Amino acid sequence: MRSDSRPVDVRELIRKGEIEGPTSGMCLGYVQANLVVLSKDMAYDFLLFCQRNPKPCPLLDVTEVGSPEPKIIAPGADLRYELSRYRIYKNGELVGEVGDIAGYWREDSIAFLLGCSFTFEGSLMRSGIPMRHIEEGHNVPMYITDIECYPSGTFSGPMVVSMRPVLEEMVVKAVQITSKFPRVHGAPIHIGNPEGIGIVDLNRPDFGEPVTVKRGEIPLFWACGVTTQVIALRAKPEIMMTHSPGHMFISDILNEEYSLL
Amino acid sequence: MRSDSRPVDVRELIRKGEIEGPTSGMCLGYVQANLVVLSKDMAYDFLLFCQRNPKPCPLLDVTEVGSPEPKIIAPGADLRYELSRYRIYKNGELVGEVGDIAGYWREDSIAFLLGCSFTFEGSLMRSGIPMRHIEEGHNVPMYITDIECYPSGTFSGPMVVSMRPVLEEMVVKAVQITSKFPRVHGAPIHIGNPEGIGIVDLNRPDFGEPVTVKRGEIPLFWACGVTTQVIALRAKPEIMMTHSPGHMFISDILNEEYSLL
Repeated sequence: MRSDSRPVDVRELIRKGEIEGPTSGMCLGYVQANLVVLSKDMAYDFLLFCQRNPKPCPLLDVTEVGSPEPKIIAPGADLRYELSRYRIYKNGELVGEVGDIAGYWREDSIAFLLGCSFTFEGSLMRSGIPMRHIEEGHNVPMYITDIECYPSGTFSGPMVVSMRPVLEEMVVKAVQITSKFPRVHGAPIHIGNPEGIGIVDLNRPDFGEPVTVKRGEIPLFWACGVTTQVIALRAKPEIMMTHSPGHMFISDILNEEYSLL
Repeated sequence: MRSDSRPVDVRELIRKGEIEGPTSGMCLGYVQANLVVLSKDMAYDFLLFCQRNPKPCPLLDVTEVGSPEPKIIAPGADLRYELSRYRIYKNGELVGEVGDIAGYWREDSIAFLLGCSFTFEGSLMRSGIPMRHIEEGHNVPMYITDIECYPSGTFSGPMVVSMRPVLEEMVVKAVQITSKFPRVHGAPIHIGNPEGIGIVDLNRPDFGEPVTVKRGEIPLFWACGVTTQVIALRAKPEIMMTHSPGHMFISDILNEEYSLL
């Protein structure tokens, strides 16, 4: 039932506490987004970091100072209540997981919403390219690479990538399909040899769980929104709020709109 | 000779005052960029304006506070000297045109470089779609539309578009080619009827010169970088510097790099 629900209805259920779990599979066809909330004093450097690193950090919306409403991707929504689980960080340390962030929101808070690769996974699967992590029922494996992002102010560090194994004969198609979604990470940043981007062991991801890579399959690596969290935590902001992994913000924008250039 | 010169050599000649004219036709194949210099206090709102309006305002590079070096698109270059002509605005009024901006540059100056449609005109012409304004030997016609940009802080106002007439049977190809360049305005924002976007008379552009639209041709409208100048001037910044029309910054980036997603 929830897979074909409208985003506004699912967000209302989340707000009422009637949905508490991850959002994977909900409101199929609608863009889900990563959330990062910072205070105004860090906002310029973070905004510029995203502008300089559009593949890992594809910005979809930025709220007005103090406003929790994402006017572009979900007018009327309230980011303080309409995600099912949040993480609170103080000075770079995780201090808690909460169901809403009303108590932490400040007059100088700004929310940044970033594209998520959920958006292109549907297109890949409909084109006959299976997602191994979905088949195996867990989160996608993510790795810290040796590719340095362009720094901005206090924000600097390595790019994080997600990995999906793809049959040799489907690699070109996977590049073509994801190239059509530049606002949700776009084409892979690397194909094949993990060591080429500083990944020592595919079986030991830095985030998420490892997946089976079968004979005849090539690992494909896409820039990943978790980059933002790694970078932001290195900058040790006094306070930062994010979604909890898998508990994304469901927007009113259809995936197809982000395949337009 | 200058059409196949390296950007670094042409910039050196500009710096020495040996080139003073417009840059159209120079260093073919390299991206040329619009320049807007603002002070730090306006930078966050302007950066967010560009993020919210990527079609008219495709940001290619933003310098560090006080630094005139565009590290991403031309490392080592100095934006104070390496454009052939600049405009100086105070409180929204044009106060002069100068050959360098060293005397106006401040410790809190930030330079923004934005994509320019010169980049896709070469691809259109090589595909057999002639550029009427080039045939007629003058600037492209530009119009203020009734399409409102997403505002950001003090920055708000209408989108400016450039117009190129295209033969009916080439319209699809023109959309396809320019779609491949999302970082230099991308696909047209409107095809056909000028009144549909608030343009009353094609023969009276707000900037540039009118072009002949022949029988069997359709006017195609692309978001235009002049939007930034119109918007910035409405915000009446204490000081703003820009390139003079046609006197663009020539970067070290090949056009082809901006056709990758």
